[in-house]
Amino acid sequence: MDVPELVEQARQGRPRAVARLISLVEGASPQLREVMAALAPLAGGAYVVGLTGSPGVGKSTSTSALVSAYRRAGKRVGVLAVDPSSPFSGGALLGDRVRMSDHASDPGVYIRSMATRGHLGGLAWAAPQAIRVLDAAGCDVILVETVGVGQSEVDIAGQADTTMVLLAPGMGDGIQAAKAGILEIGDVYVVNKADRDGADATARELNHMLGLGEARAPGDWRPPIVKTVAARGQGTDEVVEALEKHRAWSEEHGTLAERRRTRAAREVETIAVTRLRERIGDLRGDRRLSVLAERIVAGELDPYAAADELVAGVTGEGTEG
Amino acid sequence: MDVPELVEQARQGRPRAVARLISLVEGASPQLREVMAALAPLAGGAYVVGLTGSPGVGKSTSTSALVSAYRRAGKRVGVLAVDPSSPFSGGALLGDRVRMSDHASDPGVYIRSMATRGHLGGLAWAAPQAIRVLDAAGCDVILVETVGVGQSEVDIAGQADTTMVLLAPGMGDGIQAAKAGILEIGDVYVVNKADRDGADATARELNHMLGLGEARAPGDWRPPIVKTVAARGQGTDEVVEALEKHRAWSEEHGTLAERRRTRAAREVETIAVTRLRERIGDLRGDRRLSVLAERIVAGELDPYAAADELVAGVTGEGTEG
Repeated sequence: MDVPELVEQARQGRPRAVARLISLVEGASPQLREVMAALAPLAGGAYVVGLTGSPGVGKSTSTSALVSAYRRAGKRVGVLAVDPSSPFSGGALLGDRVRMSDHASDPGVYIRSMATRGHLGGLAWAAPQAIRVLDAAGCDVILVETVGVGQSEVDIAGQADTTMVLLAPGMGDGIQAAKAGILEIGDVYVVNKADRDGADATARELNHMLGLGEARAPGDWRPPIVKTVAARGQGTDEVVEALEKHRAWSEEHGTLAERRRTRAAREVETIAVTRLRERIGDLRGDRRLSVLAERIVAGELDPYAAADELVAGVTGEGTEG
Repeated sequence: MDVPELVEQARQGRPRAVARLISLVEGASPQLREVMAALAPLAGGAYVVGLTGSPGVGKSTSTSALVSAYRRAGKRVGVLAVDPSSPFSGGALLGDRVRMSDHASDPGVYIRSMATRGHLGGLAWAAPQAIRVLDAAGCDVILVETVGVGQSEVDIAGQADTTMVLLAPGMGDGIQAAKAGILEIGDVYVVNKADRDGADATARELNHMLGLGEARAPGDWRPPIVKTVAARGQGTDEVVEALEKHRAWSEEHGTLAERRRTRAAREVETIAVTRLRERIGDLRGDRRLSVLAERIVAGELDPYAAADELVAGVTGEGTEG
């Protein structure tokens, strides 16, 4: 099937066409550029929600509950579940999302897992493109679920239209959250497993750490803290309401457009850096790099001076060609 | 103090001069290039040992025991302890290494902690340079201790002259080790806490996972598995012996020189990529990037086509200037 046909079928909501397009953009296929060019005019309609939190806070259950809520409202939903994986295998650990099986047979839901570390730097590079596929395929809402443990995972969730940070009581989450930097990216906070002891304490601690008691500038967004029991669907409507409120606020204050521009700029930068990195990588088989390395080991050259030559080799600076 | 003077004092083993030089190379100071150029002809004498393993296997204790052993042999020892840290704070979590306090007053030992994530990508960028400082300062042995949990940490340890992978019984280490990819980088394996139950089972499992029972090509290095109780110094001499054996083997087979060339090549590549990334980052304030991002959000341009323009802007391709 050629690219225009695949894109057309994806627009019609055919899951296999969506899957094939994501594989094409994930895998850096020869058709990648053609796919991206075909998707460009079609994307932009989806509302992208990032969900992140430490392992064990109930991210998948919360995602599943949100999917149900959005489906009840008649929305088409895309889920991009980002799993950490071996730096060597490159494969997603969890494979297909068992906890998502409720939605597996629903044609209005598209679920995709993605490994955080594949070739070419993995996620940071491919996630925005997978989001673009889901967007162009007509999803109204795209939930991007990441484990808030690494910089790239935090980045992905933090670059959504609205970022939702999950915590659970009794996991020392305050410290964990601060470590992962997720306190700096949340637009909406959710204390899940709120039927457990310590839920109120966690919410209070969070309120304190976020400085929600302090005065803010009148135009500032004040992140709400919502308590849920996602496994029983409790509080999910309140979460949706908080997300919608943030969306309306960002549209009104121009921050949604600004965030999308920033996201696009970061995406372009990542692609550009990857391309330059590949050009440098292409020099690995080149005698120039071996000679530079030998001269460094021999103490004749320092790595900075060597990098000058490498950069010149990639950019054509100071060379004849 | 100017750079030549600092380098001279570091050569004489003055800890403050060494510390200042490492700060200069870590901090990407204006003198960075001058420092690296001054160090280049002085480095190359040190034997670099990487130590890695999951949290809790006793890396610091093992490092400390190794320091003692090398000091008994009259060697000058450098320790670079790489701590994971918040992606946002950039600071080392553990600060000064309390467990290293035995060696704190020994002028023949230089200990330095480094955060894995600072600005400019942190460790991957600065660790080889800190190693270069310790090397040029006359350390005979440099122990680079990293937590084997992330790609960059694994990379650093894996690029040493000899890489030592630590495990401990009863931690499900087999699976942990496989996840972190550390089974692919060890030249010497150490089962620490060997006085605990399950040490033999861990060694057996490791032996099986490494395929040590299988036939190898005659010239291949067969990683030894050493059992230690580092807290009591048990087995440390055997570890030193195994490290020295690997060193002698790599010198004899030319793999030491090859590994150092590879390390130098990766270092140059990293510096070159960082430089190109900075140039792209410099475009953030530039109107060109904003315009590209706006056009992407509007669906007029795809990120790949935009990246073409960005790369051209950095390399001067297809432009007048």
